[in-house]
Amino acid sequence: MPDELQYHVDGDLVPADEATVSVEDRGFAYGDAAFETLRAYGGEVFRWDAHADRLADACETIGLDHGLAAADLKARIDETLAANDLADAYVKCSITRGVQPGTLDPKPDVDPTVVVIAKPLPRGGLGAEGGDSGDGDSGDGGWAAVYDGPAAIQTTKTRKPSPRALPADAKTHNYLNGILARLELRVTGADEALMLDPEGNVAEGATSNLFFSDGTALKTPSLDGPILPGITRATVIEIAEGEGIPVEEGTYAPDEVREANEVFLTNSTWEVRPVATVDGLSAGGDGDGTAGPLTTLISRLFDRRIEETHYDGARL
Amino acid sequence: MPDELQYHVDGDLVPADEATVSVEDRGFAYGDAAFETLRAYGGEVFRWDAHADRLADACETIGLDHGLAAADLKARIDETLAANDLADAYVKCSITRGVQPGTLDPKPDVDPTVVVIAKPLPRGGLGAEGGDSGDGDSGDGGWAAVYDGPAAIQTTKTRKPSPRALPADAKTHNYLNGILARLELRVTGADEALMLDPEGNVAEGATSNLFFSDGTALKTPSLDGPILPGITRATVIEIAEGEGIPVEEGTYAPDEVREANEVFLTNSTWEVRPVATVDGLSAGGDGDGTAGPLTTLISRLFDRRIEETHYDGARL
Repeated sequence: MPDELQYHVDGDLVPADEATVSVEDRGFAYGDAAFETLRAYGGEVFRWDAHADRLADACETIGLDHGLAAADLKARIDETLAANDLADAYVKCSITRGVQPGTLDPKPDVDPTVVVIAKPLPRGGLGAEGGDSGDGDSGDGGWAAVYDGPAAIQTTKTRKPSPRALPADAKTHNYLNGILARLELRVTGADEALMLDPEGNVAEGATSNLFFSDGTALKTPSLDGPILPGITRATVIEIAEGEGIPVEEGTYAPDEVREANEVFLTNSTWEVRPVATVDGLSAGGDGDGTAGPLTTLISRLFDRRIEETHYDGARL
Repeated sequence: MPDELQYHVDGDLVPADEATVSVEDRGFAYGDAAFETLRAYGGEVFRWDAHADRLADACETIGLDHGLAAADLKARIDETLAANDLADAYVKCSITRGVQPGTLDPKPDVDPTVVVIAKPLPRGGLGAEGGDSGDGDSGDGGWAAVYDGPAAIQTTKTRKPSPRALPADAKTHNYLNGILARLELRVTGADEALMLDPEGNVAEGATSNLFFSDGTALKTPSLDGPILPGITRATVIEIAEGEGIPVEEGTYAPDEVREANEVFLTNSTWEVRPVATVDGLSAGGDGDGTAGPLTTLISRLFDRRIEETHYDGARL
């Protein structure tokens, strides 16, 4: 890896400390931008097509007709990974509505700003343990563990917005809702928020989808609610169904999660992250945060899929 | 005015086209920033203390302890106005949570990014008429009318978020909710959204507060709902009460606005903007968009206050 990371901004690779956008870019002024967080394994991003589709959907939702082909975006990501000699990496790809005349009104004629950030990030499930990054990120560019052990999750007062106000299926630079939820965790030191929908049903974490098991099925909130259609979430459902494990997507009260046998979170950086406690109560298992048998199985099968698709199974 | 505008970024005046923030600034990545839109008249910002208080409240709401004194922020605004030789101007002052290690979790230790943008903007109420800027802004730096005549407003499907999801009293760089509402106006060509709260009551516009009169009182949605506590809104209420006009802050159904005798919008750039139509129906008056008598009176009194406080009444 070069001494300093390079990021891709508006078509050019630039040193990270020179990677900037105009203060009048709508991505800065209004969070008027869509993005994807991706994982690269062995130099290749995981499930690019699924991420590209979701990014296209998000841009359509916010009326951002950027005119860029998915292959163009993929090329910028690949260039960024190559320039930094990155094999296992965190990648964030953003498309903003750029600078436009006037203030809030979005104009149809868009000169988008495209930003690709990449940082080293070790595999989640197989090797990494411990470390000091509670957020699944490599921080200021150094290596760090993907997450700091099993998660403590806590129900927050901050709820997900209604889809009538902000669409949950679009990842955008409007992320204050999740930040407000995370701020609530400062008191208890929990790692992730358990956020509820406007009706008080379980939705998701600030940056993760939630799964739990009551011994009858692997359960996760349905996409009928204000839930991000996570790529890792979809992969976990595929894997579970492939193993004949019953999967139920439904509407759940918080108590069902508190009383579950096993709970885990998913996102692209964490992959499958076991949950040790829910609102201070042990999340099934023996209370020491050891992942339960279903979580362990899903995590191993997820690892296997990545090894097979990205490393030719060489490390199996 | 110099050939090119200068903006204030992180303590320095820089040419507008070099005014940038890091792609890792949380203001860009997450809209994790608070801001104020202000008006300068005769080189002095209008009601600075009220804006400074609201900005402080917004920063407290999002847990952003930036450590900057209001006088410091005011000095940056004044420097920006002076550097651009601006007397009557639009000013936007933003404070972001800056660049922090990790991803979404906001860290208590903040090195904020402060951005001040200023552009020429003529007085609203007195002289400016016509022009081509439908958004109250001076566009790419040239002069333009403050708004393009009386507004057509339209009820949108996009509703304001519940305060449980996003606080309405904090102006932040999370502005997609308003953008989604404005996108709906493309079909009808309306100028401003009439946004409802989660229960379907009238809230506000995408960038404005709403007032209407049914002949008994000047009415505006109460701050108990998801309403921005607008500085111009407060000034209008003060002015009306000072004239003995009954003012009612309450909870209103959209039909009450549709059936009103007069409707107007307020914000810092528009000041008092008459509304010609609500959902395609004439908003009182004679249907040609001429402001009704109450709107005209409030607008004139608002003008007078500005003339007295900023121009020593020289133009009265």
